[in-house]
Amino acid sequence: MRPSGRQPQEMRTVSFEPGVAKHAEGSCLVRFGDTHVLCTASLEERVPPFLKGGGQGWVTAEYGMLPRSTHERMRREAAQGKQSGRTQEIQRLVGRSLRSVVDLKALGERQISVDCDVLQADGGTRTASITGAWVALHQCIEWMRARSMISAPVLKDHVAAISCGIYQGVPVVDLDYAEDSTADTDANFVITGKGGICEIQGTAEGEPFSDEEFLSLLALAKTSIADLVRRQKEAVSA
Amino acid sequence: MRPSGRQPQEMRTVSFEPGVAKHAEGSCLVRFGDTHVLCTASLEERVPPFLKGGGQGWVTAEYGMLPRSTHERMRREAAQGKQSGRTQEIQRLVGRSLRSVVDLKALGERQISVDCDVLQADGGTRTASITGAWVALHQCIEWMRARSMISAPVLKDHVAAISCGIYQGVPVVDLDYAEDSTADTDANFVITGKGGICEIQGTAEGEPFSDEEFLSLLALAKTSIADLVRRQKEAVSA
Amino acid sequence: MRPSGRQPQEMRTVSFEPGVAKHAEGSCLVRFGDTHVLCTASLEERVPPFLKGGGQGWVTAEYGMLPRSTHERMRREAAQGKQSGRTQEIQRLVGRSLRSVVDLKALGERQISVDCDVLQADGGTRTASITGAWVALHQCIEWMRARSMISAPVLKDHVAAISCGIYQGVPVVDLDYAEDSTADTDANFVITGKGGICEIQGTAEGEPFSDEEFLSLLALAKTSIADLVRRQKEAVSA
Amino acid sequence: MRPSGRQPQEMRTVSFEPGVAKHAEGSCLVRFGDTHVLCTASLEERVPPFLKGGGQGWVTAEYGMLPRSTHERMRREAAQGKQSGRTQEIQRLVGRSLRSVVDLKALGERQISVDCDVLQADGGTRTASITGAWVALHQCIEWMRARSMISAPVLKDHVAAISCGIYQGVPVVDLDYAEDSTADTDANFVITGKGGICEIQGTAEGEPFSDEEFLSLLALAKTSIADLVRRQKEAVSA
Amino acid sequence: MRPSGRQPQEMRTVSFEPGVAKHAEGSCLVRFGDTHVLCTASLEERVPPFLKGGGQGWVTAEYGMLPRSTHERMRREAAQGKQSGRTQEIQRLVGRSLRSVVDLKALGERQISVDCDVLQADGGTRTASITGAWVALHQCIEWMRARSMISAPVLKDHVAAISCGIYQGVPVVDLDYAEDSTADTDANFVITGKGGICEIQGTAEGEPFSDEEFLSLLALAKTSIADLVRRQKEAVSA
Amino acid sequence: MRPSGRQPQEMRTVSFEPGVAKHAEGSCLVRFGDTHVLCTASLEERVPPFLKGGGQGWVTAEYGMLPRSTHERMRREAAQGKQSGRTQEIQRLVGRSLRSVVDLKALGERQISVDCDVLQADGGTRTASITGAWVALHQCIEWMRARSMISAPVLKDHVAAISCGIYQGVPVVDLDYAEDSTADTDANFVITGKGGICEIQGTAEGEPFSDEEFLSLLALAKTSIADLVRRQKEAVSA
Repeated sequence: MRPSGRQPQEMRTVSFEPGVAKHAEGSCLVRFGDTHVLCTASLEERVPPFLKGGGQGWVTAEYGMLPRSTHERMRREAAQGKQSGRTQEIQRLVGRSLRSVVDLKALGERQISVDCDVLQADGGTRTASITGAWVALHQCIEWMRARSMISAPVLKDHVAAISCGIYQGVPVVDLDYAEDSTADTDANFVITGKGGICEIQGTAEGEPFSDEEFLSLLALAKTSIADLVRRQKEAVSA
Repeated sequence: MRPSGRQPQEMRTVSFEPGVAKHAEGSCLVRFGDTHVLCTASLEERVPPFLKGGGQGWVTAEYGMLPRSTHERMRREAAQGKQSGRTQEIQRLVGRSLRSVVDLKALGERQISVDCDVLQADGGTRTASITGAWVALHQCIEWMRARSMISAPVLKDHVAAISCGIYQGVPVVDLDYAEDSTADTDANFVITGKGGICEIQGTAEGEPFSDEEFLSLLALAKTSIADLVRRQKEAVSA
Repeated sequence: MRPSGRQPQEMRTVSFEPGVAKHAEGSCLVRFGDTHVLCTASLEERVPPFLKGGGQGWVTAEYGMLPRSTHERMRREAAQGKQSGRTQEIQRLVGRSLRSVVDLKALGERQISVDCDVLQADGGTRTASITGAWVALHQCIEWMRARSMISAPVLKDHVAAISCGIYQGVPVVDLDYAEDSTADTDANFVITGKGGICEIQGTAEGEPFSDEEFLSLLALAKTSIADLVRRQKEAVSA
Repeated sequence: MRPSGRQPQEMRTVSFEPGVAKHAEGSCLVRFGDTHVLCTASLEERVPPFLKGGGQGWVTAEYGMLPRSTHERMRREAAQGKQSGRTQEIQRLVGRSLRSVVDLKALGERQISVDCDVLQADGGTRTASITGAWVALHQCIEWMRARSMISAPVLKDHVAAISCGIYQGVPVVDLDYAEDSTADTDANFVITGKGGICEIQGTAEGEPFSDEEFLSLLALAKTSIADLVRRQKEAVSA
Repeated sequence: MRPSGRQPQEMRTVSFEPGVAKHAEGSCLVRFGDTHVLCTASLEERVPPFLKGGGQGWVTAEYGMLPRSTHERMRREAAQGKQSGRTQEIQRLVGRSLRSVVDLKALGERQISVDCDVLQADGGTRTASITGAWVALHQCIEWMRARSMISAPVLKDHVAAISCGIYQGVPVVDLDYAEDSTADTDANFVITGKGGICEIQGTAEGEPFSDEEFLSLLALAKTSIADLVRRQKEAVSA
Repeated sequence: MRPSGRQPQEMRTVSFEPGVAKHAEGSCLVRFGDTHVLCTASLEERVPPFLKGGGQGWVTAEYGMLPRSTHERMRREAAQGKQSGRTQEIQRLVGRSLRSVVDLKALGERQISVDCDVLQADGGTRTASITGAWVALHQCIEWMRARSMISAPVLKDHVAAISCGIYQGVPVVDLDYAEDSTADTDANFVITGKGGICEIQGTAEGEPFSDEEFLSLLALAKTSIADLVRRQKEAVSA
């Protein structure tokens, strides 16, 4: 029934390639099927002005798509002179999601900037970004630990994300572009390793959805994210 | 327990003042306590380029805050030369919410632009905007009907929105600024008159939240929105 | 003869509503007929870089129009990414006019930012802005006095403004949109309580005007502004 | 008494050098003492969108200062990415002034863009710009006439401009930078060859000014502009 | 002597991975040692306005660096709101280089946009971009040929590029970052398969260089580019 | 054979007018035939952030064209809100060229900003800019020396620039617009008084060029620049 032939509760093939960027303190090339995102974590010895002198750090995120990561070439945001509303919405989401599992005091007065750049897009770029960004962030923090820059634990938990939706009346997980562009309802879930919800964003593209539909999506998300967290663990212990 | 002395399930005093703008085809000054938003609906005989010749219309929204609508004066976005990510996120949300109850084909090849300008802010400006925007949109559509520009029903249902959150461990509805700035979890719900969910945006500000907490917020939202819809009906039939 | 039926020397109904904005140190909703401007005065404990350490303060102004304050919806300046030349011209005029009656040394090294936002426009928005801004500024200064932040007088005089023009050959005062858009000559006058002229801006829209015509406009302006100043006094003593 | 030793009613040495720009249809290098402005008039076979198909033309103006035309180097507006409020105010003024003496219907559906670029500044750049721009515009129109592009008269009259001010209590004409930066009152007058007033802009820099003071400035301006018009005539007939 | 231990005339390991981007008509991931650039060629059925109706096509290029492709994280150009002068200089160079070997008439009235995005930087990103872009462009043109969109040859020749420089007094080829940042002279050469020179850009970073030094760099470049062209041939015939 | 009737190795009439700008510490109006560039050198007691406290100075350049310096009026970059890629490329080139002959340590922690503004363009504006900028820079440095701000020599050598190209198969020097717009190959050379090469930029507009062609252009450039340097010497010693 799904264009890809997957079962409703079946995610695409997911892989993590940590350490892929030579210069970054942390990095991960994450793949959810044909969606490929390069995540890098950059340590900077400064914090945003509103935190100066407060003794705590900050984690922020930026998001971008290569112009031909998509089916049709998109205009380059740098050439247009501004980031779209969608881009800003996504990078704010990625930043909030990561901060929800970071002990900013334990990080010390430093900033980690996580860049999520979509090399190839096939739906679910924001959830892949969050899931891969956690691996890059983890590597950056281990880099700091190896240099005795931090002592207490900085990462309090895993965080991962998945999209779910109602496709032709059936709740399905990890929508690819073919599904995403025609689904009735699309919801993104950001959930921690312990199962706590960080963020829910549900949108009815056409018809509004019911409580029951929404709960079925939440259930799918929780199962899938538990699986993603297991794979993050493998990736960072490899 | 709440700074305002309200009960957990108690909204602020809500009022609608339709027709407040002399020039606009539809308008409404909506007040949720000290949050005041001026919503106008402007009819334009054109559609965005991607819809040209398709025989359907469009509803879009823009959002802004007056510089001193807030406790501290904010910089004017027009002077800064760009809209913040937050502004863009909100105006995209308002537009999607309204479109979810509009029959764009029945509207014909025209655009209705809804402007939501916050005159005074005390928390919940985006949910007040959606709730008031529906009233302005309704008035604009009646204006068109009175001029025989449309025949079939354009508005398929009501839509309204409310914020809920966990404040000091207790689920509460319609957070004001004092609550919003310290709440653990903040969720916005956009729901139709028939109870269909258009949009859910839940964010853990600090600790992630549980499924149960989330469901209690959803329950609060559904009750409150039913009440808001009742008041919208009174406002447009007055 | 005038579209509104007013006499040549008759202003529209003018009203001031001071204290209308909950958060601002000073505010006033001013109405000249159907032209409504919300003026707020915001106290900030900083001065522009060119005044740092000089022991004197600054008063500045910004101006904006809500997109549907006008007959046709205008594009939102924040969305366009810049303020028009007209907007900048007006906000520079409002700032200069207010500074002409403020003792900047007595204010101390602080800035008062006055925002004039047009909620509804029917001609004369810049002159209404100046006239209402003085009331907001007065309230802000009284707010400071009540907190013993200042001792010497800061406001040296009233300042108010009015537009005059030649409409169908006759000099008239306080042009509304219907007159403004067809008048041959349009002049704005900013005059103090003592009758001193702060600013004159006269423009021939079509045919150049004569000295005599200009003097008749100046005479109308002086009488009308004396009346506006009297009403400002009532508003701030109420 | 004046820093330059001039009499109150004495202008600086004024010269016009028409035809100075090889490529432009009209041009004039105008000098008011050490203020030098290069004015070019460019004919374009198009009109702004709001005039398309209306059978009339348009005259518009742009203004700029070379970065080191001034005592201290100013930042280049092209590098800053925007034109200042002052620049926009001036170019709007130049455009309006020129249009007040042009028969736009006789021009036909074409646009003349007049660029006024200040090569060296010593006060009075906007009034020099208007006065020189008229000569460039005249040359452009003669260029068109020589090619039979127009038949009826396009220029209805001369237009010129001068600044006057109260310097140390005395009304003086054609302020240079030393006077302009310390004068109490500064007024710019744009007047036609027949003595009609196109534009008056009077500003009290410090103390407000009286009616009498203003009238003395107007008288000075009228005499000086009559002289400037005489010199424009010589320049274009040479 | 060279930090990498390479011989003066020894390039880094170069590899081409054509077809790496799923959506693009042509693509190539090119690697010069640790410099990795993802090149995509996107076919668009439109030409820039200045070519409309002229019966010929266009090839253009855009260039970008991922924020953490470099040793220190750079600010994202999309977030800054503009492309740097360096970025614009490079993308103009890439576009000119490609057009020098394309028969724009044979291409027909279409545009190919080549995006060169630097995933990892270690010196020589612009020359790697040109060299890889040719492979992506070749693939795009074959894609068109397979669909009978073109008949005549479109690509007239190969084009490739290399940097050469004087490092510690010795002419060396293919500078990496360690060399590039300390070299006295840096020159980029763009040369065709037949040995024709498309572009030479030589810059003395410190001391000016002599004719002899320059000729030694040109000789190195010609040899190396012949080698690069051989590898391009292998890549596209694989 | 050349449109201007010049011999292949014949430059246009070149003249320097130093000291032309009243306010600038150094200035020169340079003319290469009908190409006229006003160069000013402005001394500022500050350095860019990356040099603060390093005890050395900086020389930078900006470039602009008046809108009607060209055959067709160009859009004003300040009005467009950004500098074109071409403008940025040129101003970076001018800055590098000047710095190659300046002892930045001897300059002390100060910046000299050189502005090159094209009053009239007829090909070769960038090379004229560099050649004239050196004269303005020299005057600025003499101005400093006269005030004992510097003691050691700051200018190490002359620098001048010229364009050469293959026009109808013949190598020619100092291309004017008529040649530049149709030449097969265009190369700009920046060379010091001692004959050292600072910068070479060669571009094949159509067909790639051969080594021999390039060497013939280099030879032409060296002869012509020796001549330009001789004229710079006369200009600064006059």
